[in-house]
Amino acid sequence: MSNNHVAYEELYQFILGCLRKVGVCTESATCVAEGLASTSLFGIDSHGIKLLPHYVRAAKNGRINLNPKYQFTLKSHCAGVLDADHAFGHHAGTVAMNQAIELAKEFGLGAISVANSSHYGAAGFFAIKAAYQDMIGLSFTHADSLMLSANGKRPFFGTNPISFCAPVEGEEPFYLDMATTSISWNQVMLSSSQDQNLQAGWAVDENGDGTIEPKLARALNSIGGYKGYGLSMMIEILCSLLTAMPFGRHISSMYKTPISEHRHLGHFFLAINIAAFTEVDDFKKRLKEMMTEIRQEPSKGIAAVMCPGDPQKAHKKNRSEKGIPVLDVTWKEFEGLARDLEVPLPNVKRG
Amino acid sequence: MSNNHVAYEELYQFILGCLRKVGVCTESATCVAEGLASTSLFGIDSHGIKLLPHYVRAAKNGRINLNPKYQFTLKSHCAGVLDADHAFGHHAGTVAMNQAIELAKEFGLGAISVANSSHYGAAGFFAIKAAYQDMIGLSFTHADSLMLSANGKRPFFGTNPISFCAPVEGEEPFYLDMATTSISWNQVMLSSSQDQNLQAGWAVDENGDGTIEPKLARALNSIGGYKGYGLSMMIEILCSLLTAMPFGRHISSMYKTPISEHRHLGHFFLAINIAAFTEVDDFKKRLKEMMTEIRQEPSKGIAAVMCPGDPQKAHKKNRSEKGIPVLDVTWKEFEGLARDLEVPLPNVKRG
Repeated sequence: MSNNHVAYEELYQFILGCLRKVGVCTESATCVAEGLASTSLFGIDSHGIKLLPHYVRAAKNGRINLNPKYQFTLKSHCAGVLDADHAFGHHAGTVAMNQAIELAKEFGLGAISVANSSHYGAAGFFAIKAAYQDMIGLSFTHADSLMLSANGKRPFFGTNPISFCAPVEGEEPFYLDMATTSISWNQVMLSSSQDQNLQAGWAVDENGDGTIEPKLARALNSIGGYKGYGLSMMIEILCSLLTAMPFGRHISSMYKTPISEHRHLGHFFLAINIAAFTEVDDFKKRLKEMMTEIRQEPSKGIAAVMCPGDPQKAHKKNRSEKGIPVLDVTWKEFEGLARDLEVPLPNVKRG
Repeated sequence: MSNNHVAYEELYQFILGCLRKVGVCTESATCVAEGLASTSLFGIDSHGIKLLPHYVRAAKNGRINLNPKYQFTLKSHCAGVLDADHAFGHHAGTVAMNQAIELAKEFGLGAISVANSSHYGAAGFFAIKAAYQDMIGLSFTHADSLMLSANGKRPFFGTNPISFCAPVEGEEPFYLDMATTSISWNQVMLSSSQDQNLQAGWAVDENGDGTIEPKLARALNSIGGYKGYGLSMMIEILCSLLTAMPFGRHISSMYKTPISEHRHLGHFFLAINIAAFTEVDDFKKRLKEMMTEIRQEPSKGIAAVMCPGDPQKAHKKNRSEKGIPVLDVTWKEFEGLARDLEVPLPNVKRG
């Protein structure tokens, strides 16, 4: 394991530099750089910096609009649609979540669905923006068909994630960010690149039978069987039907569709203004109490009882000090990007 | 299996009659009767008519306020809190969901959290009300501590359910209503009363070890391990913290707490006006297309690929014709209620 460790700021600048060199506008490039680097800082390696080479290809080959012109359609007071004009999902989602927050400030709630977007990385990157402004944030996206259907042989819905964040007194926000499958597809690819087996029960092969080999995996099991499948359909309804985007097996594949094609993805963001319901300080104080009680629950002895987001917070602390590990396979790709785009490689952290 | 089958209308009138006889106001009694009978019509026997004897005890012994005075606090345009004054949850939830729908008509979204409520039955009973008005409805409640914590030995959160409903062209609304545990606690009690074992993986005993015996079950496994536990915490935040109600292990038990005590439960309802995002007819047409495609997906041969709510719709069709089966154990309780309260027993359906 000779992984290089790199500081957040170094990675941020590298991502920004690469994207600017292929013509991505400053605002989009900034959102993607912040999104990828902060996701890796949180330890979510499946959705962080490893995506940069793919995103550079997408920007160079036409999948992504380098200078998107956004258009909001607000038919009602506190809800509406953002047409993202095939922007990077990180940028589209940032614009939409910020708009939802502004609406919630005025009306108590705000919701924006996003049409004509692309892969948006980790769902939590957007939901946490609301929490930083003393609101509850929710973030959803659909994705290409990779979840084994209940009773089915093959996937119809995607790994469709849900994120929910809320502010807490005296610490970083409560942070839930989860696929509705046992794992995300990017984790399968990460395991494949590291020659690691999957856990039993996570994935199935082309016949719908269980497999632990990432290279044979064709679909992922949903959490709780028909329940996770139902949650995924809920997310599909929000992201495909409120946005007039494709659904289910009509959604193009992130990796198999030609990189010149737009993906027409949809997202859904909701901001809930806590002040519309209760005193914000009381809310944050009681959430801290709840989390403290949970962390003191008796454990089975294998690991402590934690709150969602606790592993991510530990990663953030650790990686802020020691740097973010860049897998060798990713570092090699970074070297290629640095050479091709004439962007300086990030400095490696000395221990 | 000598279960009696009884028509919906007969059960509705019996429940209404019993509750009126113990002094429950007409509006509350009507909401509970509709809620319990329609839930059983949908085949959700754990949350339907079997709860009547418990509800009668709760009404007679002071847990429930027979004539609640509701109070809305709306600090913002489209979101606020309903203090339910210890009403039946079915009544409180109906009032709150209807208010959320009215707000969503005007503003695009509407959310009401409910404080000082009680057990509200099936979450879907409320969410579907929005779907009948061409909106998306979401319904959440917290519940007493019964979900095994991730890495823990004992429960902290409840089976905290989520329901999501949406209108569909040419058929009853899309209907998702699920506990975030493998099963609901009322299902454990139903299995216990019928001397049936639980499935492996559903429940744990007092040491946090798996059990299939309903009488030994002390907690239920969450769906997807830490993911279902995270979803339950999300619901707890909405239902406990936006309402200033107790959380986690501080929530009183439905069955073990003295029946004279109020339960101080919280719920959360959200209505999303589809018209604020897209054309309602397009949405309903495309949801029908999505559901048709799903139902045609290749299956493993055990059962067809279905949409959430399909089993419930089949039950509704069947039970509308043949009547709702009343378990013998429940029928005996109904006989006791009929005798004590001098309310005529429902007529049994002749085949």
